[in-house]
Amino acid sequence: MLEVVDINCDLGEAFGRWRIGDTDDMSLMGLISSANIATGFHAGDPNLMDQTVRLAAEHGVEVGAHPGYNDLQGFGRRKINATAKELVNDIIYQVGALREFSRRHGVRLQHVKPHGALYMEMAVNPELAQIFVQYMRTAAPDAYVFCMGGSATHVAALESGQPAIREFYADRDYDDSGSIVFTRDAGRPDPAVIARKVVRACKDGKVKTVSGNDIAIQFESICFHSDTLGALDIAHQMRDALTAEGIRIAPVSEINSHKSMRGEQL
Amino acid sequence: MLEVVDINCDLGEAFGRWRIGDTDDMSLMGLISSANIATGFHAGDPNLMDQTVRLAAEHGVEVGAHPGYNDLQGFGRRKINATAKELVNDIIYQVGALREFSRRHGVRLQHVKPHGALYMEMAVNPELAQIFVQYMRTAAPDAYVFCMGGSATHVAALESGQPAIREFYADRDYDDSGSIVFTRDAGRPDPAVIARKVVRACKDGKVKTVSGNDIAIQFESICFHSDTLGALDIAHQMRDALTAEGIRIAPVSEINSHKSMRGEQL
Amino acid sequence: MLEVVDINCDLGEAFGRWRIGDTDDMSLMGLISSANIATGFHAGDPNLMDQTVRLAAEHGVEVGAHPGYNDLQGFGRRKINATAKELVNDIIYQVGALREFSRRHGVRLQHVKPHGALYMEMAVNPELAQIFVQYMRTAAPDAYVFCMGGSATHVAALESGQPAIREFYADRDYDDSGSIVFTRDAGRPDPAVIARKVVRACKDGKVKTVSGNDIAIQFESICFHSDTLGALDIAHQMRDALTAEGIRIAPVSEINSHKSMRGEQL
Amino acid sequence: MLEVVDINCDLGEAFGRWRIGDTDDMSLMGLISSANIATGFHAGDPNLMDQTVRLAAEHGVEVGAHPGYNDLQGFGRRKINATAKELVNDIIYQVGALREFSRRHGVRLQHVKPHGALYMEMAVNPELAQIFVQYMRTAAPDAYVFCMGGSATHVAALESGQPAIREFYADRDYDDSGSIVFTRDAGRPDPAVIARKVVRACKDGKVKTVSGNDIAIQFESICFHSDTLGALDIAHQMRDALTAEGIRIAPVSEINSHKSMRGEQL
Repeated sequence: MLEVVDINCDLGEAFGRWRIGDTDDMSLMGLISSANIATGFHAGDPNLMDQTVRLAAEHGVEVGAHPGYNDLQGFGRRKINATAKELVNDIIYQVGALREFSRRHGVRLQHVKPHGALYMEMAVNPELAQIFVQYMRTAAPDAYVFCMGGSATHVAALESGQPAIREFYADRDYDDSGSIVFTRDAGRPDPAVIARKVVRACKDGKVKTVSGNDIAIQFESICFHSDTLGALDIAHQMRDALTAEGIRIAPVSEINSHKSMRGEQL
Repeated sequence: MLEVVDINCDLGEAFGRWRIGDTDDMSLMGLISSANIATGFHAGDPNLMDQTVRLAAEHGVEVGAHPGYNDLQGFGRRKINATAKELVNDIIYQVGALREFSRRHGVRLQHVKPHGALYMEMAVNPELAQIFVQYMRTAAPDAYVFCMGGSATHVAALESGQPAIREFYADRDYDDSGSIVFTRDAGRPDPAVIARKVVRACKDGKVKTVSGNDIAIQFESICFHSDTLGALDIAHQMRDALTAEGIRIAPVSEINSHKSMRGEQL
Repeated sequence: MLEVVDINCDLGEAFGRWRIGDTDDMSLMGLISSANIATGFHAGDPNLMDQTVRLAAEHGVEVGAHPGYNDLQGFGRRKINATAKELVNDIIYQVGALREFSRRHGVRLQHVKPHGALYMEMAVNPELAQIFVQYMRTAAPDAYVFCMGGSATHVAALESGQPAIREFYADRDYDDSGSIVFTRDAGRPDPAVIARKVVRACKDGKVKTVSGNDIAIQFESICFHSDTLGALDIAHQMRDALTAEGIRIAPVSEINSHKSMRGEQL
Repeated sequence: MLEVVDINCDLGEAFGRWRIGDTDDMSLMGLISSANIATGFHAGDPNLMDQTVRLAAEHGVEVGAHPGYNDLQGFGRRKINATAKELVNDIIYQVGALREFSRRHGVRLQHVKPHGALYMEMAVNPELAQIFVQYMRTAAPDAYVFCMGGSATHVAALESGQPAIREFYADRDYDDSGSIVFTRDAGRPDPAVIARKVVRACKDGKVKTVSGNDIAIQFESICFHSDTLGALDIAHQMRDALTAEGIRIAPVSEINSHKSMRGEQL
C-alpha cells in the first residue's frame, strides 16, 4: 500500500493557437505534482513551453521534459523508423530546449518522460533505452526517467544507476503482460471508474487487464493525459479518491529524498 | 592595432543529408577559434548538432549557439514578423537545445549569436534586443553575445552587463553607417581580397564601404560564413595573412579573461 | 442594394488533432455558400482537406483554396519577407494540393483566396498581385480571386481579365481607407452587432470605420472567420438577418453566371 | 529483349539552398525520358518544383509526381507508421501540388511514383496500394503508376485497370525475391558496372542478386537516383551502353501508345 504517490500529466500539448481535447491544460496545474511538458516535436511550441514552465514554477509543480517523435500532425503517436542514435539526438535536443526555459524560470529539470509512440518504442528497444540512459548519466544524472516498470527503459536505468520512476496509467488499458494498450485516441473514459482503478492500484497493487485478469503492478507515479476527454474531471475525482484514502500526493523528487530508490526498486 | 583576434564561423548549417555551399563545414573546424552552431530552425538538425559539438570539443574550438528564424526553406534569411517575445522564446528553445549537446560533450556554451535576418532585426530592434539580453542575464550570464558594434543588441548587452563581442564581417559589404549590407546569398568573393580587408581592419581599424568611403571599425572577432562559396580558401588565406602580421588567433573567452570587457568597450 | 450575396468562411483550419476557436468548423458548412479551405501551410492537413472538401461537396458548398504563409505556429498571421516569386510558388503548391482533393470528390475549384497576412500583403504589393494573377490566368482562368475592393489584388485581376470577387468583412474592423484593420486574434465580437453591420452593408453599401466615419463599400461576398469566438452564432444571426431582409444567399459562381462580372466592377 | 526503354530519375530533390549528392540534378535532365519530381515532403520545395517542371518541359522530358513520407530530415527513407488513408491523403496533396506546376508550364502529369520508404511500404501493403490506386482511378485515370513488378502496388494497378509501369533499379541491389534491398544511402557505385547490369537486364531480362543468383526481371523503365554519388556519370554510361546496343530511350507514354499495356503485363 502506497502512502504517498506522485501524479504526473502531459501539459503544454497545444500548438500555436490550437488546442486539443476539451481541457485547458493550464487548469490541471493545481491538481498534479509533476508536469511532463511538451517540447515542440509532437506538440508544444516555445511560447507555450515558456508559459507552462512559468505556471508550473508558480504552483510548485515539478517540471519534466516530454520529448516525442518529430510529427506534429500525428501528435507523436505514429512510430517513425529512425535509428536509436537519431532518436536520442532528437530527445537531447528537446530536453535541452525545455531545460533552458526551466533555467529562465529558476526551476530544475526533475524528470524526462518520452511521449506516446516513442515511450512505447523505448519500452521494447534496449538499444534505444541504453543510448538514452547513457546520455542521461552524462548530462542529467539527477533527473528521473519516467517509465513502465519492467520495460527496456526501466532496465537500462536501473543497470546504469539513473534514478527511475515507474508509472501507473490511469486512463489507459493494460494487457496481461503489464504493458499498456497503446492508442492514438483514448476517447472519453468514466472519471469515477478511473478513480476507483487508481485507488485499487495504490492500495492493493493490482489492476484488471483487457482480458479480465488481475495483475500485480508497482509504481511511484500515476499518469493521465490532458488530451483525454474529461481530463479535468478525471484529475479532480482521482485526487479526491486518493485523499479520502489517506494517500498523500507529492512529486517524486520529494518522495525519493526519503528512501533509497534503487533498494526499493530492485 | 589588434594583437589577438577571434575567428568565428557558422557551422553545422547542413540539414539531414543536404549540404550548402561548396565547403564541408567540418573541414573549417581546424581553422577557427569559435563555432556558431546552427540550432535547427534555419539549418542544422539534432544529429548534426551532436556531430558538430563533438568535433568542436575535439579541436578545442569554443561552442556558441546560432539561433535563427524558424524557416528552413529560407535559411533564416527572410524576416518573419513575429513579436519580440515570440522571437526570444524561439531563441531560448534553440540555445537550450544546443547547450544540451554541449553538456553531453563536456564543453561550455561560450556565446550566442543570432543568425541571418534575426541578427539584422535584433540590431535595429531595441525591444527584441532587451528581452533577449534579459534572458541571457538570467539563464546564461557568462555567455558572450556576438553582435555588430553600436547595434541595439550591443547597446542592450552593455547596459545590462552581459558580456558582448563585436564582429568584423570578412565576407560581407559595409555601408557608411557601419552596418553590413544584408544579402541572402554572398556568391563567391575573392579570398585574397578578403584577407587584405581583414588585415587592414585589424591593423588600422578601417574598412572601405560600398560607396567607397573609409570608416572606422572596432571588433574582437572576425566572422565569415561557411556557405559563402570558397569558404575553405577564405579561411586559409585569412588565417595566413593574420599570422604573417603577427596577429594571434584565439577564442574570445581567452582574450577577455585578460582584460576588462566593459572598460574596453565603453 | 444587393438582392443576392455570397457568404464565405475559412474552413478546415484545424491541424492534426488540434482545433482552434470554439466552433467545430464543420458545423458551419450548412450556413455558408463558399468555403475557403486551408491548404496546410498556415492550417489544415491532407486528412482535414479531404474531409472538408467531401463535406462541402455533400452540402453543395462551393470550394476555394485558402493558401497562406508557411507558418503553422503563427497561423499565417505573421508576414514572412519572401520574394513575390517565392510566395506565388507557395500559393501554386497549395492551390494544386486543394484542387486534387476537389478532383477526388468530383467538384470544381470555384475560387482562390489568400489567407491572413498573405492576403493583406498582396493587397498592397502590386508585384505579388500581378505574378499571382498571371499564374491564375494560365492555370485557373475560370476561378475567382477573392479580394478587397480596390486592393492591388483586385486591380491586377481586373486588368488581366481574371474574375474577381470583392469581400465585405463581417468580423473585422474597417479603417477610413476602406481597408480592414489586420489583427492576429479577433476575440469574441457580438453576433447581433455583426448581423446589423452586414445588413446595412448589403442594403445601404455603407460601413462605419474605427474612427467613426461612414464609408461606401461594394462587394459580392461576405466573409467571416471560423476561428472568431462565437462563429456559429455569428453565422446564424447573419444569415437570419439577411433572409429577413429578403437578401438571398448563393455562391459567387451562381451569382455571376447571370451578369457580366467585368461590366459590374469597372 | 527490349527495343525501347524509359529512363526515369528522381529530380528536384534539393531543398531551399541545400543540395544532396555530388550532382546538380538539373544536369541530368538531358539524359532521361521521365522525371520523378520531389513534391516537398521528403525533398523539394515550391520554388524547386517550379524550376524543375519548367526545365522538364523545355527538354521534352515527361513529368511525374514523386510523393514521399513527410520527413525532410530523413529524406523520406524512414517509415512512418501512419494509416493507409493518411498516407494516401499525403500522396494526393503532393500529387496535386506538382500537377499545378505542370499546368502552369503547359505539360501533363505522366506518372506518379512514391518515393523511398513509402514506395517500399506500398509494395508490401495491399490496403495502401488499393486506396492509392482508387484515388488514381478517380482523379488521374490516365497517369501511370511506377512500381516494382509483382508488388502490391503493381497488383492493385492491374486489377483496377490503372496503367502501370514496372521499373528496373540501376543503382540498387536485388534480393532473390525480386525486391530491391532498401538502403538509406547508396554510396558511390561503379558507373561501368551499372551500365553492364542495365544492358543485361534489357537484353536478357536477368539480374544477379545479392546472394549471387540470377533472377528473371521484366520492366518498361530504368530507374536511377540523382543523390547516388556519381549520378551524372551513371546516366552517361548507361545511356551510351544502351544506345550502343540499339536500344532506344523514350518516355513510357510514348512506348505505351503503341501497344496494349494490360495485354503485355498480364
